[in-house]
Amino acid sequence: MEAYMSSIGSKLQMLYTSDHASVVSMNLFVALLCACIVIGHLLEETRWMNESITALIIGVGTGIVILLISGGKSSRLLVFSEDLFFIYLLPPIIFNAGFQVKKKQFFRNFMTIMLFGAVGTLICCAIISIGAMQIFEKMDIGPLDIGDYLAIGAIFAATDSVCTLQVLSQDDTPLLYSLVFGEGVVNDATSVVLFNAIQSFDLTNINAVIAWEFVRNFLYLFLTSTMLGVLTGLVSAYIIKKLYFGRHSTDREVALMILMAYLSYMLAELFYLSGILTVFFCGIVMSHYTWHNVTESSRVTTKHAFATLSFVAEIFIFLYVGMDALDIEKWRFVSDSPGTSVAVSSILLCLVMVGRAAFVFPLSFVSNLSKKSPNEKIGFRQQFIIWWAGLMRGAVSMALAYNKFTSAGHTNLRANAIMITSTITVVLFSTVVSGFLSCE
Amino acid sequence: MEAYMSSIGSKLQMLYTSDHASVVSMNLFVALLCACIVIGHLLEETRWMNESITALIIGVGTGIVILLISGGKSSRLLVFSEDLFFIYLLPPIIFNAGFQVKKKQFFRNFMTIMLFGAVGTLICCAIISIGAMQIFEKMDIGPLDIGDYLAIGAIFAATDSVCTLQVLSQDDTPLLYSLVFGEGVVNDATSVVLFNAIQSFDLTNINAVIAWEFVRNFLYLFLTSTMLGVLTGLVSAYIIKKLYFGRHSTDREVALMILMAYLSYMLAELFYLSGILTVFFCGIVMSHYTWHNVTESSRVTTKHAFATLSFVAEIFIFLYVGMDALDIEKWRFVSDSPGTSVAVSSILLCLVMVGRAAFVFPLSFVSNLSKKSPNEKIGFRQQFIIWWAGLMRGAVSMALAYNKFTSAGHTNLRANAIMITSTITVVLFSTVVSGFLSCE
Repeated sequence: MEAYMSSIGSKLQMLYTSDHASVVSMNLFVALLCACIVIGHLLEETRWMNESITALIIGVGTGIVILLISGGKSSRLLVFSEDLFFIYLLPPIIFNAGFQVKKKQFFRNFMTIMLFGAVGTLICCAIISIGAMQIFEKMDIGPLDIGDYLAIGAIFAATDSVCTLQVLSQDDTPLLYSLVFGEGVVNDATSVVLFNAIQSFDLTNINAVIAWEFVRNFLYLFLTSTMLGVLTGLVSAYIIKKLYFGRHSTDREVALMILMAYLSYMLAELFYLSGILTVFFCGIVMSHYTWHNVTESSRVTTKHAFATLSFVAEIFIFLYVGMDALDIEKWRFVSDSPGTSVAVSSILLCLVMVGRAAFVFPLSFVSNLSKKSPNEKIGFRQQFIIWWAGLMRGAVSMALAYNKFTSAGHTNLRANAIMITSTITVVLFSTVVSGFLSCE
Repeated sequence: MEAYMSSIGSKLQMLYTSDHASVVSMNLFVALLCACIVIGHLLEETRWMNESITALIIGVGTGIVILLISGGKSSRLLVFSEDLFFIYLLPPIIFNAGFQVKKKQFFRNFMTIMLFGAVGTLICCAIISIGAMQIFEKMDIGPLDIGDYLAIGAIFAATDSVCTLQVLSQDDTPLLYSLVFGEGVVNDATSVVLFNAIQSFDLTNINAVIAWEFVRNFLYLFLTSTMLGVLTGLVSAYIIKKLYFGRHSTDREVALMILMAYLSYMLAELFYLSGILTVFFCGIVMSHYTWHNVTESSRVTTKHAFATLSFVAEIFIFLYVGMDALDIEKWRFVSDSPGTSVAVSSILLCLVMVGRAAFVFPLSFVSNLSKKSPNEKIGFRQQFIIWWAGLMRGAVSMALAYNKFTSAGHTNLRANAIMITSTITVVLFSTVVSGFLSCE
């Protein structure tokens, strides 16, 4: 009978202790998030730091502490998971960006944004892929096939809209903000088409038919994703206007707006569209229509609740990336030949800079040709800022690199390990340097 | 080379299609949540339905549809997970309850609440355990040991604070609301002590020393949990007051409040305390101190954001329970002998009613003895409502039953399957019947 007793006891106890290790990690993680907000706020006065860089540094610091405590075994509290990133953290950030974006500025520069996001990304991806293929084949970093090189191009062509939001201010530089952020959003649609193209087309003999197919696919994806976002936004406005007429309930209105926004993202993922594009346009429509149908307190609540969600998700990502940067498993391969790793990282950084320069300046020139007023033209200083602000690589690049070069966060191939550590180096370097420069 | 291409293509494609089945489920789930809010709002005019019952019914309906589509194989979109429930859904509900509770009413009835929550739960648990042991041993339902019977007592003694919030109105019946809800919160601490006691004490020979140990444990747990909640609340108030002096930022304030509240719950879980008690008192302190240190827009945002979170979590739970109710695996065992299952469910329902009556009426009498003014006494009609409102069994009972009688949501023992289906029956029956009666 005592055995029975202890059996039920331990079973019920389990409910409260189930995965006690994960409870410890969550505590530490939430406490670190609080610390990032408080410290980031305190350092804000010095004007050369923001929450993102604070989170990145705190993340790296925590990684070192965990590494020391665990005796060099592990540096991370949570394994980097693309699902967590793409399903929970990214949607609120992009939705909030759409919700708070200055719509007039955005639509005025629509063609330039499309040019940068679609054509520019393709140019950048091609240059990075070809450059990496030429250079890495002469270096001793292990076997990489053509697929890997194309993936490297796609990974490093992905401008990180999250980082961009942090360095450019919508109020101070509305034109630059809308251009660079818009590019980042359209970029995502391009990547989806690019991946599908790599999979389904025979890229060895490209001709006009395939190129046309490619353009058609892109237009289809862009239009359907946008339409889905606009439609969901309009449906939410209609529901709230029709149903809640005269009987407004703030909780229900806010809940419906959040759920519908999230639904738009998930629907896009369901139909293999670009969730980022969809939720971005859903945010624009919601702020333009739905927001004006709700009560005053719903308006205040949604405005700040969405901003808060996005703020926490951003800090979460940077903390996560910082903590994951020290993951010992990958660095072990690299420690045999530190020179190679530094060389690979530098080459990739250079390729990113060259690839970006190769489309920002020519495409700005093309865009300027169509503008009549000199105010609307993109000056050389602004072109330089666009080039530089889009250099940042962030969590999106990390997620893509993990997906391509590891299986469930682990790898045993030297070449793959070097690619992961190089991605981490590029991400940390570009974020911290750009972040510092931007606050000057 | 083509093989390489398709390899990278499919790998990158995976990023967008990873677990496409789970994307489908999430879409359906979010869409159903929206439907529940809209339909619940429409039916509210008829005054005999609310969102919870709507969610429960829609959940069961969806379960039937999925069952038919899958050809009788499965009825659920997601496997019932205690972690999801205890780590993500319960904290916002209890925190919001603390945040919006009428503090004056709550603290005036503090002793009565403690009496009901601590002594009452013990009485109820004992009666249900003994009753089940006496009756079920004579029935043919398979082998159940003493540990199982004690677990049945603990499972069915757990008043569901979530359901209670739905049937009693804080504005119309403040005394009853604070009594029944407070009981539900204290209840949780009692359960933790009860489980620990079963595990660590030799219950076969209870004497004064062990009883004293038990009381001491309860007091320790109650006091430390409360202190932790109060402390976290005060720290949040201090941080926001000190740091943000003159430089208020709504996003940071709201983010800090949410994160600190969640941290209090996770810290309590970390130290094996009662997270529900902690987060409840954290909510009380935050609404009393922190809330007055923030900007006006933070006040509006937190008030409605917390209510919305809690609202969505409640609907989520009911939808989930409704969908899980039809899980075919358990009903298959029961279908051989439907009579037994109905009998077991009815017996359990009767035991719950008897067990609750056995402490509500005597303890109300004891509580009335200490009150001088007739206004403060609990009248018979009110005692009856307390008895009846606390009869509801909800997601807490389901979570406990799944934890005890299944492993990872599956069971192959007939007795265990019958216990699960009986719990589901009791939960559905008590929620729907009480819900209907309350709206009359």
